Amino acid sequence: MNKTGNDKPDILVIGAGAIGSFYGAILKRAGCTVSVVLRSDYDAVKADGFRFTSPLGELSWTPDQVYQPGDTPSRFPDYVLLCVKVLPGVDRAELVRPWLGEHTGLVLIENGLDIERELADAFPRNPLVSCLAFIAVSRTGPGTVNHQAYGQLVMGNFPKGFDHHCERLAGLFRDGGIDINGTDAVVGERWRKCVWNTPFNPLSVLANGADTLTMLDAPGGEALIRTLMEEVIAVAQADGYPMPDGIIEKNLSGTRAMGAYKNSMALDYLNDRPIELDAILGNVVAIADRLNVPVPHLRTVLVTLRIRQA
Amino acid sequence: MNKTGNDKPDILVIGAGAIGSFYGAILKRAGCTVSVVLRSDYDAVKADGFRFTSPLGELSWTPDQVYQPGDTPSRFPDYVLLCVKVLPGVDRAELVRPWLGEHTGLVLIENGLDIERELADAFPRNPLVSCLAFIAVSRTGPGTVNHQAYGQLVMGNFPKGFDHHCERLAGLFRDGGIDINGTDAVVGERWRKCVWNTPFNPLSVLANGADTLTMLDAPGGEALIRTLMEEVIAVAQADGYPMPDGIIEKNLSGTRAMGAYKNSMALDYLNDRPIELDAILGNVVAIADRLNVPVPHLRTVLVTLRIRQA
Repeated sequence: MNKTGNDKPDILVIGAGAIGSFYGAILKRAGCTVSVVLRSDYDAVKADGFRFTSPLGELSWTPDQVYQPGDTPSRFPDYVLLCVKVLPGVDRAELVRPWLGEHTGLVLIENGLDIERELADAFPRNPLVSCLAFIAVSRTGPGTVNHQAYGQLVMGNFPKGFDHHCERLAGLFRDGGIDINGTDAVVGERWRKCVWNTPFNPLSVLANGADTLTMLDAPGGEALIRTLMEEVIAVAQADGYPMPDGIIEKNLSGTRAMGAYKNSMALDYLNDRPIELDAILGNVVAIADRLNVPVPHLRTVLVTLRIRQA
Repeated sequence: MNKTGNDKPDILVIGAGAIGSFYGAILKRAGCTVSVVLRSDYDAVKADGFRFTSPLGELSWTPDQVYQPGDTPSRFPDYVLLCVKVLPGVDRAELVRPWLGEHTGLVLIENGLDIERELADAFPRNPLVSCLAFIAVSRTGPGTVNHQAYGQLVMGNFPKGFDHHCERLAGLFRDGGIDINGTDAVVGERWRKCVWNTPFNPLSVLANGADTLTMLDAPGGEALIRTLMEEVIAVAQADGYPMPDGIIEKNLSGTRAMGAYKNSMALDYLNDRPIELDAILGNVVAIADRLNVPVPHLRTVLVTLRIRQA
């Protein structure tokens, strides 16, 4: 039982940007106590909460507590939702440590591959739930968020399984109005998302923010993207996660059907925000190297982006 | 004997930008009659000629004739120097055709690989001299040029040989004050220059104008550049031009010794000028495909730049 007297869990969202404030809103709507830790938008959210526009209806909400990094929690939450970007120089274990009690579950809603391990290693006895978000949402100002579409989470324990924490969280997210796709092989789901993200996202940055159809229709573009996808699939297979037949065709036809589209990494690049290069591509190449899978095309893209960042 | 009454040849420079006006100045200094065909700088050069700063001393000169495209030559020159960039959409054969008499020699001073063929095919009976320039020179305004350093030409007939036209031109350039490195295998010399240019130039553009040391010192950078060089060398070998042992080490140590340096393609990119992508990289990949040499790293760089240009 939490401090509001019902049996809904206490949630703390760390990194309450667009993603964090959206899933916080969903859990708030499901009746949870939801607090946030904020850095840059602290004053705005403390004063006015989060203001949303969303096709799901009214999602604006006021956190139960608004913390800053360095504050001390009055009590440990049942679950911490970690929603920060995975970037070099951001030590996520240290971000989380002050807010994690002995029994607090850690819920990652973050993009990329192999992004759970450093947290699993740092907190081996806390429950660890790994989520992939399929959503179009963006922060438009301090405390203001525009949710454009979607919101589904793919959810499972890291490295595998679907325990009672997953069950409980899935029920709450569904109560709040979004779809949950539960899985006992979340790493395989991350690989499946990488089949699209790992080629398209970094390539769009190298091409200075090109949209999907520009990439596919340039001379040699579709062939290069297919080859990059084949390399991702070969690494996934060697890592123990064979991808389903026809996944390349399905990805490409889906991409064409969606029309010209700037992916999230392209938008980060165009808006001078850091890109999650390691989570999306660097970790794939690192696993390939560990498993001796040749990835010449992926490596060229990775190193070229590292040169650009240097 | 030319119209000035000596036995020096009549020269016509087509594309009298930095490169063309420099080598025109050298031949003028050697006593040739030198005219130019100009587009954008026509008025300035017609009025004031070319104004140079150069470590070689006074190179400023006034062309004997200043033509525009569409003009009719009073007589055909002994040699046409073609010094335009090799770009898609620039039909060099059509640029040259109106100025080429039955016996006019065609002299290319242009960068890249396999850039002679379309001219050899268009004018099979005219002498064809192919030159590679090793020079740092830039146009600073209409008719004004800053020659910073170097100027050596590697010269030979295309596809091979070193005939009396080469002999004569080499003598004139030497009289004008520059070094000529004569060769009977100019294609091999172009391959040798590609070992450096083909990796460094396009990569610097993908990295938004990075300098040489930034590229070498980024994580994985030197390894990628070595691999790109190995691919170029494999294609050269398959094309019949084995590169000397140790050429990679020599290129890399020379590059490090020179210090941080922005190459010409990086400068073109940073100054919003078109880049010679096909001459430097596209033609290498095309030859690789014809000869079934795998070039995954070169292809990734090429296609990524084509996407960016799309």
